[in-house]
Amino acid sequence: MKFFELCPSKFGKDDQLGALNYIARESTAAAVRLVRNGRIFSLMHMLEDEIPVNWFHKDFIYHTYRSAPEMLKYFDSVFPNKNRISFTNIRMEMSDHTGTHIDGLNHATIGYSLYNGVDVRDVTTTRGTSRLGIENMLPIVTRGVLIDMTLLHVYDGPQAIPVSDIERVISIENIQIRRGDAVLIYTGWERFWKTDNQRYVSSMPGIGVEAASWLASQEVATVGSDTQSVEVEPNEEPGVDGRVHQILITENGIPLIENMKLSELASAKVYEFLFVCTPLKIRGATGSPVHPIAIS
Amino acid sequence: MKFFELCPSKFGKDDQLGALNYIARESTAAAVRLVRNGRIFSLMHMLEDEIPVNWFHKDFIYHTYRSAPEMLKYFDSVFPNKNRISFTNIRMEMSDHTGTHIDGLNHATIGYSLYNGVDVRDVTTTRGTSRLGIENMLPIVTRGVLIDMTLLHVYDGPQAIPVSDIERVISIENIQIRRGDAVLIYTGWERFWKTDNQRYVSSMPGIGVEAASWLASQEVATVGSDTQSVEVEPNEEPGVDGRVHQILITENGIPLIENMKLSELASAKVYEFLFVCTPLKIRGATGSPVHPIAIS
Amino acid sequence: MKFFELCPSKFGKDDQLGALNYIARESTAAAVRLVRNGRIFSLMHMLEDEIPVNWFHKDFIYHTYRSAPEMLKYFDSVFPNKNRISFTNIRMEMSDHTGTHIDGLNHATIGYSLYNGVDVRDVTTTRGTSRLGIENMLPIVTRGVLIDMTLLHVYDGPQAIPVSDIERVISIENIQIRRGDAVLIYTGWERFWKTDNQRYVSSMPGIGVEAASWLASQEVATVGSDTQSVEVEPNEEPGVDGRVHQILITENGIPLIENMKLSELASAKVYEFLFVCTPLKIRGATGSPVHPIAIS
Amino acid sequence: MKFFELCPSKFGKDDQLGALNYIARESTAAAVRLVRNGRIFSLMHMLEDEIPVNWFHKDFIYHTYRSAPEMLKYFDSVFPNKNRISFTNIRMEMSDHTGTHIDGLNHATIGYSLYNGVDVRDVTTTRGTSRLGIENMLPIVTRGVLIDMTLLHVYDGPQAIPVSDIERVISIENIQIRRGDAVLIYTGWERFWKTDNQRYVSSMPGIGVEAASWLASQEVATVGSDTQSVEVEPNEEPGVDGRVHQILITENGIPLIENMKLSELASAKVYEFLFVCTPLKIRGATGSPVHPIAIS
Repeated sequence: MKFFELCPSKFGKDDQLGALNYIARESTAAAVRLVRNGRIFSLMHMLEDEIPVNWFHKDFIYHTYRSAPEMLKYFDSVFPNKNRISFTNIRMEMSDHTGTHIDGLNHATIGYSLYNGVDVRDVTTTRGTSRLGIENMLPIVTRGVLIDMTLLHVYDGPQAIPVSDIERVISIENIQIRRGDAVLIYTGWERFWKTDNQRYVSSMPGIGVEAASWLASQEVATVGSDTQSVEVEPNEEPGVDGRVHQILITENGIPLIENMKLSELASAKVYEFLFVCTPLKIRGATGSPVHPIAIS
Repeated sequence: MKFFELCPSKFGKDDQLGALNYIARESTAAAVRLVRNGRIFSLMHMLEDEIPVNWFHKDFIYHTYRSAPEMLKYFDSVFPNKNRISFTNIRMEMSDHTGTHIDGLNHATIGYSLYNGVDVRDVTTTRGTSRLGIENMLPIVTRGVLIDMTLLHVYDGPQAIPVSDIERVISIENIQIRRGDAVLIYTGWERFWKTDNQRYVSSMPGIGVEAASWLASQEVATVGSDTQSVEVEPNEEPGVDGRVHQILITENGIPLIENMKLSELASAKVYEFLFVCTPLKIRGATGSPVHPIAIS
Repeated sequence: MKFFELCPSKFGKDDQLGALNYIARESTAAAVRLVRNGRIFSLMHMLEDEIPVNWFHKDFIYHTYRSAPEMLKYFDSVFPNKNRISFTNIRMEMSDHTGTHIDGLNHATIGYSLYNGVDVRDVTTTRGTSRLGIENMLPIVTRGVLIDMTLLHVYDGPQAIPVSDIERVISIENIQIRRGDAVLIYTGWERFWKTDNQRYVSSMPGIGVEAASWLASQEVATVGSDTQSVEVEPNEEPGVDGRVHQILITENGIPLIENMKLSELASAKVYEFLFVCTPLKIRGATGSPVHPIAIS
Repeated sequence: MKFFELCPSKFGKDDQLGALNYIARESTAAAVRLVRNGRIFSLMHMLEDEIPVNWFHKDFIYHTYRSAPEMLKYFDSVFPNKNRISFTNIRMEMSDHTGTHIDGLNHATIGYSLYNGVDVRDVTTTRGTSRLGIENMLPIVTRGVLIDMTLLHVYDGPQAIPVSDIERVISIENIQIRRGDAVLIYTGWERFWKTDNQRYVSSMPGIGVEAASWLASQEVATVGSDTQSVEVEPNEEPGVDGRVHQILITENGIPLIENMKLSELASAKVYEFLFVCTPLKIRGATGSPVHPIAIS
């Protein structure tokens, strides 16, 4: 295997958008026309205590910072208001890769190379990176398709998903994958979210090198899944780790959406829909927690 | 002035949705049909250092937690991978009311009462509140309207916006406010975001009691603005503080979207659009940073 | 077993000091006279990545917040100084029970009772507790003694330390335990710190109910150990958890110092010394990271 | 003015201890003999809400993370214990330069140079710096002297303290400054701590270049004060900033202790004492909150 340490973009040497370039304005308008009855599916897991995390990113930690009963007393004593308003808020401390989240084009490297040949040593700061940060990512509004792999398999371990299986599923579902799509792959691994966190994070089914390359060749805009990594872990080849992240993010500029909640969409047999995902614009960040939705 | 400390909901005693009940499925589908050319407007300010915050919520603090160059060396020494992947991430520490954000129905009280008569003392925990948390808020997909007050005024202080001015503006814009709408009020105060933070947060133009009551009577789903509080601050009546929050959130279950970036929409003279805003589902939280969008 | 839910203090109903009352001013002066050659032993583990923590307290998370190279450029551009100074700092996010730390008298309850009959429901706020907070704890300067249990045993599991063994050790060491002492119990469990974190935290040798009661009867000021809990875990009696914390902290007002690094002191056979431990005065906190020292 | 960008240490090219080298073991033992009656003075301000901070370091943020009443219910339902123990803890998020704190030798630069010629670009990581981190600093146990400048002046602005005034004060106090001392300079500025935070941080009296150079020539171990910066701010020379930090920390390896609470010591007229300050050993950190004490 030969890995190139430079990943030129087909969209030009200054490009920071990657595969989101495929979502042209016309196709947004077309995607919107997929909406029939306006049913909205939430594709986000709850952010709360005891959600699965991996060691690299660490825990989601949050807590009440101001409580309305306390603050009411404080306001009464310090600057009383006649209408007796008070407020509660929380503060939270978390990775940009917490819970349901999107991976930016600055998240994964091949050696020192990020997407489009950016040398990560040149752009790393104390506030993420000075190029390719998530703040450059546009809101994603495009056609979404659900690839429900559970129509073929009940995965109980880190099986790789071959292209042939994807093709069988989209044939069963009677849909096609198109340029600019958000492709969501449902593996059923979601069932271990919070029921068996250790199992959820330690290995998982997903696409391998073959399917990743094929999806890139389809010029999809983004790939999501109901697992922590989208890709099969461990990789099919010993000694290889995160190769699908490199193929999709680093070589092809395709952001990944991880830890999605897709079971409801699968149960409803909704395979084609308007997909909306709006990452928070955090300067320099390498990802963002998101609340993606499907509208059918 | 008499303030009731119980705020019964017209949607039933168990309701946690508030005015989002107005967005029926048909009107979502209808709102989607407003999309013409698929142009997307981002209505979110960048999250970064030195954004305006107020003392109650405190700063947005973030930083690189893992850097790819460091982690590459770590991986090489501890568990080398043939494909030489590495990763960067950040961690962030912030209030749920940071930057462009939505206020949940558990944020503001009248005395000890939250929306729908919930006593805040009964539901406050170390993880926000056990009822009315932001995790109950549905993704908002509805018709949006922009009320561009700068068509009438250049505000240079805390002017209250009367209903008559709103009516003049929607007449100029040739639109109407309808049940279930996301009403976005552009004051131009956005110009002080990061250019004069002290001015941005210390006082601001916005709707007062009259306009808030009128908007509630229109049965709008949510109200947003390009200011920190949506409402005029200080209040028109001395000794009153946050009264509009109480009228909209606590009494009528209408969430507010604050610190929006609306100037681009105003410049483009886009007054009616598909509006999408998907709060993060944080259990118990009283708000969420959001990246709302308008699609025209 | 009968547990009382009220824990009156022998030091009076308003007491917040607990066993630190035993350290009278004369005995501080006497302790100081124990110093012979001025050798200082650091009894604190390094705070760094991948230290053992338990689920209750969560991780120690820290990171560079400002880097001098970045800030030098910032200063040059925004407010240049002729002497070209720049600075680095870090921020850290952690529990008050991180690493080597002391447990305050408000940390552990029997039902709803804290030390001295304080009902924890009455004093809990969003900033710890309004009584018995660590800010009330005095700097500890007293005679310290090391009880080196490894003179008798190499513990490889959660053995309880009986009083008879403590008595044998102090006989071997030729010391006595006195009123007002800081009693440090070295078990050797420290060898798993960062070498086997899972083993370090999941069970441990330590004092049980008998030895805790005996130490309380000796009127010692504080008890420390080279384990996470000072006490044997799991408890000798099935279904009982943290009983030693209750006996020492809640019933007798004796703070515990946990995760100490005691091996160097044991190697040097220093069994009697001046002990200094100065908890950070954090209003309402239930503990504090500390850097205790022994001076021989 | 000529600033050298390399600051060789007189203690050898590998030295990371700086002026703490002056505290030889004998002088620790001698310092201990200064203790007469064992009275302990706490020289730390409370860590709490609304303490003064500067923009560089940002706020001290803390909050209850687990409350005993909540956790008691949780334990009862998930793993009940017969003795009904429960716990409260807090988490805190802060700079290593929060409140009363010590500045490490890696905190301040001259250009890119740290103490002892270390190039800050070579040692900066995401966890502070890989050399000169605060974990290398020894516990400080030495003779302390209080220079009570209020015996001469009531400072109401950023007056620089000349050497001649220091000499007058130590003459009045009938003490001498010796090699290895902790020199604590009381200005009275402490009176603005929490009473006028803006005033406390925006300018302050303190030593200037002359007195800093003189103190360095006295070979003192550390210099503390009851101000944010120890040094006069703004500097006496326009366009110069933090020059005293450079002289003491960067050129001479003398750590500074800032935001000390010294009024009680001054009131008691205790000018010579045993001084103990034990920075937390945080790997790579550039400082540490501390609770220094004086024992007379």
